[in-house]
Amino acid sequence: MILTPNLVSLPPMIKNLESGWFTEIYRDGGSAFSLQIREKLHEEQSHYQHIEIYATTHFGNLMVIDGCYMLTSFDNFLYHEMMSHPALFTHPAPRRVVIIGGGDCGTLREVLKHPGVEHALQVDIDERVTRLSEQYFPELCESNHDPRAELHFGDGIQWMKDAPAGSVDLIIVDSTDPVGPAEGLFTEAFFRDCHRALGDDGVIVQQSESPLYHLDTIIRPMHKAMRDAGFSDSVTLPFPQPIYPSGWWSATVAGKIPVQAFRVADARNKTFQTRYYNADIHQGALAQPAFFGD
Amino acid sequence: MILTPNLVSLPPMIKNLESGWFTEIYRDGGSAFSLQIREKLHEEQSHYQHIEIYATTHFGNLMVIDGCYMLTSFDNFLYHEMMSHPALFTHPAPRRVVIIGGGDCGTLREVLKHPGVEHALQVDIDERVTRLSEQYFPELCESNHDPRAELHFGDGIQWMKDAPAGSVDLIIVDSTDPVGPAEGLFTEAFFRDCHRALGDDGVIVQQSESPLYHLDTIIRPMHKAMRDAGFSDSVTLPFPQPIYPSGWWSATVAGKIPVQAFRVADARNKTFQTRYYNADIHQGALAQPAFFGD
Repeated sequence: MILTPNLVSLPPMIKNLESGWFTEIYRDGGSAFSLQIREKLHEEQSHYQHIEIYATTHFGNLMVIDGCYMLTSFDNFLYHEMMSHPALFTHPAPRRVVIIGGGDCGTLREVLKHPGVEHALQVDIDERVTRLSEQYFPELCESNHDPRAELHFGDGIQWMKDAPAGSVDLIIVDSTDPVGPAEGLFTEAFFRDCHRALGDDGVIVQQSESPLYHLDTIIRPMHKAMRDAGFSDSVTLPFPQPIYPSGWWSATVAGKIPVQAFRVADARNKTFQTRYYNADIHQGALAQPAFFGD
Repeated sequence: MILTPNLVSLPPMIKNLESGWFTEIYRDGGSAFSLQIREKLHEEQSHYQHIEIYATTHFGNLMVIDGCYMLTSFDNFLYHEMMSHPALFTHPAPRRVVIIGGGDCGTLREVLKHPGVEHALQVDIDERVTRLSEQYFPELCESNHDPRAELHFGDGIQWMKDAPAGSVDLIIVDSTDPVGPAEGLFTEAFFRDCHRALGDDGVIVQQSESPLYHLDTIIRPMHKAMRDAGFSDSVTLPFPQPIYPSGWWSATVAGKIPVQAFRVADARNKTFQTRYYNADIHQGALAQPAFFGD
């Protein structure tokens, strides 16, 4: 039996609470992931995007932006730890950190676990994401009042253009997918501004989507853009992330210094708790799947 | 708005081809994964289980057993490579390999890539799985006629009870979930039979479900059962597997020898192609997530 095209193109499930589930369809991969929902906690159209908050049955609270999973209470530790600690332990002594995006404040919390960090600035375009995170993901916002933390709400691309040369040690681009407001964060022009803003040992890390789905469309072009922008080394670190398409995600690190080595002893003797990251996991994430080399 | 329980308990989508998608709901995790379907290729009730084959839009062919994803053409390489090569490169010289389950023959194919293997016996209870794999996943069956391969259709638990002591170097338990026919493959009694059947350097590997969902219910009890059965060492290797619950899966290796080291030089100089596995990935999979140690 072959289905008629119009039937095939139907969405996999009713995308509303009456059915008790939330689904994100990843059409380019012909796949969809669903979480069972207890109730909708909040919904609004901010100046920039559509934001929904749900209480799930098993994943804690869920934030959805423009129909895509952003994070859940249950599994965000994988993403936030892998977006921060590998890059922080790659730079020899990161004191000045800038997070572009990251409005849920989970990356900021991880960054501030490093006692050597003197200033961590979060630049997210949408203040509403942060205000909703304070309400529905308070554990991610517990370092927002750390005296080293600064929250700025504005355009990260413009901020980076205006940043004084050499004024930053580490840039973490914790953005949404490369469509809409985040599109400009995946360009050589943006990486050039980052390169200029970074000091001599400067390191940048950017979320780089699924190793399985986006190797040719995102990951390889990102490496090229970072190298063309002046970074001398780059590497992609895969990690599990159940709520994102394919359940497998990645962070791409580039630097003015080699980024396939890191401060192993410091990572092994870190002074803070993590749930996924440790020195072995960092080393393991530097392993490149065979198909990366094809 | 709080949903009434009867609404919440509805399945997330219509589980039929009219909607153009196949969905597996993992109720204990409140999550579901869906693949878009082009057509149903086959459906039958074998003596042991309900088997369906679909053509998907992006994942190639899909085999479903008793409503659960078994494998797709697109992503099975992750599972089959990680169920075979780490264990094979852990044993010092595996010549005699027994696969319990594995009826799709994908693990058998990987095993036979090792030139040192002299005999690889696959013991699956359901011949229909193999016959359907030959038809719909021919690339996985390309080594079935290797003179070193032997396909036996019967009860793996009984086979292991009857195996002569010390007659096997490596046992790969490539089973379905620990419910129904596969339940007995997750017990200390079975692991005792395996221990007896294995030679002095014997190694066993068993699929051990999701690191995120099943640490306390499957993985830790499996380690205990393997140790209680006499194995002196055991370790769990996580790997990505998009179609299984949480998108993150694991293989647990135990041995009469240490299993956290492996023949690194041999793995680095392997004489065959893989798509995910290599020596670095093996080392990386031995890294234990921080929460494993909690």
